[in-house]
Amino acid sequence: MNPRSADLVILSGGLDSTVCLALAARDARTPPLTVTFDYGQRHRRELDSAASVARWYGAENLVVELDASKWGGSALTDPSVEVPSTGPSDGIPATYVPARNIIFLAVALGIAEARQADAVHIGVNAVDYSGYPDCRPEFIEAFRLVAAVGQKRGVEGRPVEVVAPLIEASKADIVRQGVELGAPLELTWSCYLPGPRPCGTCDACRLRAAGFAAAGVDDPALAGADDR
Amino acid sequence: MNPRSADLVILSGGLDSTVCLALAARDARTPPLTVTFDYGQRHRRELDSAASVARWYGAENLVVELDASKWGGSALTDPSVEVPSTGPSDGIPATYVPARNIIFLAVALGIAEARQADAVHIGVNAVDYSGYPDCRPEFIEAFRLVAAVGQKRGVEGRPVEVVAPLIEASKADIVRQGVELGAPLELTWSCYLPGPRPCGTCDACRLRAAGFAAAGVDDPALAGADDR
Repeated sequence: MNPRSADLVILSGGLDSTVCLALAARDARTPPLTVTFDYGQRHRRELDSAASVARWYGAENLVVELDASKWGGSALTDPSVEVPSTGPSDGIPATYVPARNIIFLAVALGIAEARQADAVHIGVNAVDYSGYPDCRPEFIEAFRLVAAVGQKRGVEGRPVEVVAPLIEASKADIVRQGVELGAPLELTWSCYLPGPRPCGTCDACRLRAAGFAAAGVDDPALAGADDR
Repeated sequence: MNPRSADLVILSGGLDSTVCLALAARDARTPPLTVTFDYGQRHRRELDSAASVARWYGAENLVVELDASKWGGSALTDPSVEVPSTGPSDGIPATYVPARNIIFLAVALGIAEARQADAVHIGVNAVDYSGYPDCRPEFIEAFRLVAAVGQKRGVEGRPVEVVAPLIEASKADIVRQGVELGAPLELTWSCYLPGPRPCGTCDACRLRAAGFAAAGVDDPALAGADDR
């Protein structure tokens, strides 16, 4: 049996969720429990990053397998849909995965309740969210209501808290916070494609690069990639 | 590629979800898509029932694997916790699975969006719900809000509808509706244990027996079990 963690952090292995973990770890007395989803995404590179980041924090990394490629509907889970490379456009992009954060938060609430964690932390970000509806404050609010009325924990006492500390931050703010907290940004992976190096042209790469540039920081993950 | 179903029905293979499917099938122009969760429950008997019921309706049965026994927290997913057999007691029972319907609805919303279904039907029931918070009207309401604000479908147009037609029905009403609609109740499995015959003493068996008795109907699943 693992020791109780007061905090659960949804960790994709990307920049935002790593900084989210850094914040939770700073404020926690026991290492957070990290949860990573193997959901049939195009590559396992980010799962490796999540495992490395969790290890860096001495945190357990629970990998939840849920194969969303069974139903598809996204460039990230359906190989027949191309990942856009021409930069962010208006509207919700092809990389939107139907209900992804709804599913992630739902499972995280279940794990938090079973493992007696008090809070679920998620690194969603509404500023550079690239059009994803499940990264906005009104979505997080709706999910707080679900936790309050739909769980034993919520009905019998204090609901599992849903914490989204980066929701109003710009990508540059996130980079700055990560650097300040000494987060292992060199271990993170944001690119929608498998690598070995970030493609530099998908929306995730473009947003990340713009964030580091605006923060005036060199991306340590790119330096690391050059060395390989 | 499967043809588009306008309706998605969460089908456990039990009485309530089968009657829920019967209602959706009655009103639909194309057979509903049924979704069944293999979530690490104690036995596969109900998965077989779900497959049989779906086949009976000519409906596709998509089985989603998500191993909740990885985190436990329930008599239904943790073999070290016993299934109660002394009848319903006050409060939320040991068979409560943390966030089960939150997770089921979350995944169902994702599948509905990816497969362009307009509605998700769930057979939750607040009357004989045996203390589960995620079977109550306020929970369904909260999830409707999640669908409206957290999905592309909800943001761009009409959200995926969340339909819970049995939420106010008694078990006897559900039995009566099932009989009236000619639903294959003989194929359903409610017992928390694997069988070969329903145990008769778990809460699910007790509620089912009381429902059939109150409706004045013999349970065809018991007759079938006697013949085996």
